[in-house]
Amino acid sequence: MTYITVINPFEVPQGREKDALSMWETFAEYFRKQPGYISTRLHKAINPDAKFHLVNVAEWESAEAFQAALSNPELQDIAKELPGDIPSYPGLYQIIRT
Amino acid sequence: MTYITVINPFEVPQGREKDALSMWETFAEYFRKQPGYISTRLHKAINPDAKFHLVNVAEWESAEAFQAALSNPELQDIAKELPGDIPSYPGLYQIIRT
Repeated sequence: MTYITVINPFEVPQGREKDALSMWETFAEYFRKQPGYISTRLHKAINPDAKFHLVNVAEWESAEAFQAALSNPELQDIAKELPGDIPSYPGLYQIIRT
Repeated sequence: MTYITVINPFEVPQGREKDALSMWETFAEYFRKQPGYISTRLHKAINPDAKFHLVNVAEWESAEAFQAALSNPELQDIAKELPGDIPSYPGLYQIIRT
């Protein structure tokens, strides 16, 4: 099966790591239960000056499965309660070289 | 062993994918031969409007091994020949949640 990778770099403002982690936990709990979810890894920068302090890399069975999870109204309800001021740049990817 | 992950998102300007891939190949060939290198995966965005069209995710045995590979004068010579106008945001990471 050709799975897809969702990569999401977070630009975490100074002093907001705790909020960002709590947001990640809430989203992760939701995504884990959705059909087509395979796995996720949250990466934290070693160097404090990294542009993206946190980067999430998740695997899904297909783009369709991920899009279905994204468009679920349950997710909109969850997102309403979370901080909206931590910029992130999610994208769907395929591995093209190893 | 606690390996580290190097994540490098590339902001590839319109029409520059070929140049970016060629740059990646040149760097990959160098890094593959360095002590402590484990693996690399180049991800290409499925959606054309992704902020980062290419994202490289590599594994190294340690931050020290990667820093040594970075500071090798051979790399500076290689970099001189490559396009310098494709912005990227490399960082060293540890996995903190799965």
